[in-house]
Amino acid sequence: MREKLENNFSEWYNDIIERAQILDIRYPVKGNYVWFPYGFKVRKHVLRVLRSLLDATGHQEALFPLLIPETEFAKEAKHIRGFEDQVYWVTHGGLDPLNVKLALRPTSETAIYPMFKVWIRSHAEMPLKIYQVVNVFRYETKHTRPLIRLREITTFKEAHTAHATKEDAERQVGEAVDVYKNFFDTLGIPYTITRRPDWDKFPGAEYTTAFDTIFPDGKALQIGTVHNLGQNFAKTFDVTFENPEGEQEHIFQTCYGISDRCIAALIAAHGDDKGLCIPPDVAPIQCVIIPIWFKESQKEVNREIEKLKEELKDLRIHVDDRDIRPGQKYFDWEIKGVPLRLELGPRDIRENKVMAVRRDTGEKGSISRKDIKSQVQEILLNITKDMKARAQKELEGKIHESGDLEEAAKIIKDGGGIVRAGWCTAKACAEEIEKKDITVLGLMDEDVTTDCIVCKGQTKVKIQMGKSY
Amino acid sequence: MREKLENNFSEWYNDIIERAQILDIRYPVKGNYVWFPYGFKVRKHVLRVLRSLLDATGHQEALFPLLIPETEFAKEAKHIRGFEDQVYWVTHGGLDPLNVKLALRPTSETAIYPMFKVWIRSHAEMPLKIYQVVNVFRYETKHTRPLIRLREITTFKEAHTAHATKEDAERQVGEAVDVYKNFFDTLGIPYTITRRPDWDKFPGAEYTTAFDTIFPDGKALQIGTVHNLGQNFAKTFDVTFENPEGEQEHIFQTCYGISDRCIAALIAAHGDDKGLCIPPDVAPIQCVIIPIWFKESQKEVNREIEKLKEELKDLRIHVDDRDIRPGQKYFDWEIKGVPLRLELGPRDIRENKVMAVRRDTGEKGSISRKDIKSQVQEILLNITKDMKARAQKELEGKIHESGDLEEAAKIIKDGGGIVRAGWCTAKACAEEIEKKDITVLGLMDEDVTTDCIVCKGQTKVKIQMGKSY
Repeated sequence: MREKLENNFSEWYNDIIERAQILDIRYPVKGNYVWFPYGFKVRKHVLRVLRSLLDATGHQEALFPLLIPETEFAKEAKHIRGFEDQVYWVTHGGLDPLNVKLALRPTSETAIYPMFKVWIRSHAEMPLKIYQVVNVFRYETKHTRPLIRLREITTFKEAHTAHATKEDAERQVGEAVDVYKNFFDTLGIPYTITRRPDWDKFPGAEYTTAFDTIFPDGKALQIGTVHNLGQNFAKTFDVTFENPEGEQEHIFQTCYGISDRCIAALIAAHGDDKGLCIPPDVAPIQCVIIPIWFKESQKEVNREIEKLKEELKDLRIHVDDRDIRPGQKYFDWEIKGVPLRLELGPRDIRENKVMAVRRDTGEKGSISRKDIKSQVQEILLNITKDMKARAQKELEGKIHESGDLEEAAKIIKDGGGIVRAGWCTAKACAEEIEKKDITVLGLMDEDVTTDCIVCKGQTKVKIQMGKSY
Repeated sequence: MREKLENNFSEWYNDIIERAQILDIRYPVKGNYVWFPYGFKVRKHVLRVLRSLLDATGHQEALFPLLIPETEFAKEAKHIRGFEDQVYWVTHGGLDPLNVKLALRPTSETAIYPMFKVWIRSHAEMPLKIYQVVNVFRYETKHTRPLIRLREITTFKEAHTAHATKEDAERQVGEAVDVYKNFFDTLGIPYTITRRPDWDKFPGAEYTTAFDTIFPDGKALQIGTVHNLGQNFAKTFDVTFENPEGEQEHIFQTCYGISDRCIAALIAAHGDDKGLCIPPDVAPIQCVIIPIWFKESQKEVNREIEKLKEELKDLRIHVDDRDIRPGQKYFDWEIKGVPLRLELGPRDIRENKVMAVRRDTGEKGSISRKDIKSQVQEILLNITKDMKARAQKELEGKIHESGDLEEAAKIIKDGGGIVRAGWCTAKACAEEIEKKDITVLGLMDEDVTTDCIVCKGQTKVKIQMGKSY
């Protein structure tokens, strides 16, 4: 049931962030939130998945400073223009003013590339693929929102790569897109991939490829971006290498990032009116075990629970032995989104069974104690598959095609999702679209011939448009 | 051989930090450094050990914001006095001045305790044991040094606990000391434990228990501290709970921290003139395998290496198949401190053996391929044990007893380490000691009767003194 969630997503979202103990929003600085221990565990598992995909593709984790001197930060003109309204500045150390102001990184190009300059000597050292998971800061003036629009982005995974050729950087963009597909697929988060229009690309990039998901309220949320930086930053920071011909050349670069928003997307894609629903791969608790006690059988049940724990010890399990009614326990773990609940009482022991309840479907059924581990694993696999399929189907229902701008505007205004349409690539036509309070999200990679939704001119370009967070 | 290291520790340390690729010191902000991928891996394993000890004792990991509003930060008078010279202030967001200045946390009491105020209601919710691993900032005016004196401390593990009684807070101090002992023991880092003199305790604490190690140059390095905060912060931040009698009472608190310095101590305790020597438990690579190729046998050796890899796959191994001479490989991995090196060539294959070389002792010997895994594991255990014992013995050699202040001053000035002596607890006598350019490190927990090293009066208090980083 996603009724509350569909009807008033904002309210549902704020409520569940707090009740499932993901974040505490009461910290006394706007746009800064506290990760509760339970939320922190979800974050940890999500990061584990992301790191393992990056490590498996030869990325190396490093860690660069938070503070960027103004002198470095201001070097890349487009970059600084893109961020200057958003940068927090440290101006004092103790009681003394600093000689050079220090920026809190809003992203780390200008912290990392001066180091690339001293690290990279020869083509043989490339590709160089570095990433870090850090906090970054944006002085957001718009309405802030937990995990979505933050002043402290606590979880910014940014990768930065260096290449000897344009082609190799291009290949890296493809690898990054594949890594991100893999990541979102593992989390069961559905997405669309487009190339951002030129006026919306990353400041300093050649082009930006973006992953968007669609929220229950029909709005698009950017959840990952991959940028081909060409030689722009390399020229600014003078990062050169010796090519095989013995000549000095500027490196080619890409960078790509994923933030806390992936956890917002996880919550929105799978939650329902009862609470969170976390995919087994990243659930802090994959299976909660509830003892069903009766006065005379408590000891026997506890003995059996111990055995069950032992049998399932390779999974992330938790036995809820609090002295409260089982119903209250069900309720609590449904809020927290534990994918599978096992109940075990005296009758189950007699019948050598366990009651299993799926969080995603509510489906309930007895399973035999024999081969319990492989059965539970199979159920968890099915949950993963079904959750992903349901979310994917919902996303597809929110993607529309239209050749009529008024119709498109209505769909979008009503929260129906995003609309795909032809676009002649003229800025004037894009402006007509945006006058309708619609954003051009990006250009699709599709081989089509169609008409521009504004001027009706024939075009081979199709775009996605909608409202955006 | 720790000759270079003993004779000119500073030079050895700076050199090895760079050559072993722990940190890059070329970042263009004083006291801010970049973790290289290899250093980052060492850090990751060290943090894994620390986290597992904290998790096993019921601590929960959370994450609090970096930015602390001046209004909160300034509430605790002693605390702010202790830190005001060291705090970085954010004064601008974008081009606009902020209404309330924001401190970059130098430590997180003032970020966390306002949340404790809203979290804690009843005695039943305590003890509450929270920790986080974050970057903190100190505007150090003294000479900065990688991992030792930093302006960005990138690795600050801070734990904060809340208790319903003074006794339970006292018990927690004991638990924290035990966790830290366990941690340093696992890393083979020797330490002394003392109670800091009152004038050197944590600003706002009742008392501070500190772990110091002694560096090869004889100076003490504080590597961990445990603070009993009493009800000081609870009163400032008005954190109360309902006690079993139904009355409102202020909570009792402790906090304790470990920083990047634990990695400095790891490097200094075990390194030698050839480079790092990393204890197997935290080594990014526990065992490096070097193929010894001859023209006609390369294929055969590679086949055998594949088998060896498979047999050792549960360990952290690395096969160095670079096309350079074996000697160069030995040299590289000695710098990086890999605890065990295995060499395998055609003769070893014929004899069904592998050559094993210990990094710590240089000991070299053939081991049989049969049960290779358990043999390697045993060698690694011996390395762990022997490294720890050697480091412990060295520390003990640097601890002296003296009843004569001139003698003590000479030992300390000559880099001989620290001196233990009686102290009558009069501030005047401590000042006499400190006039000699010696620091009173702390009071020992020992049941003795002795004479004050200054006034010769009888006392039951013994102190440690020396130079300190």
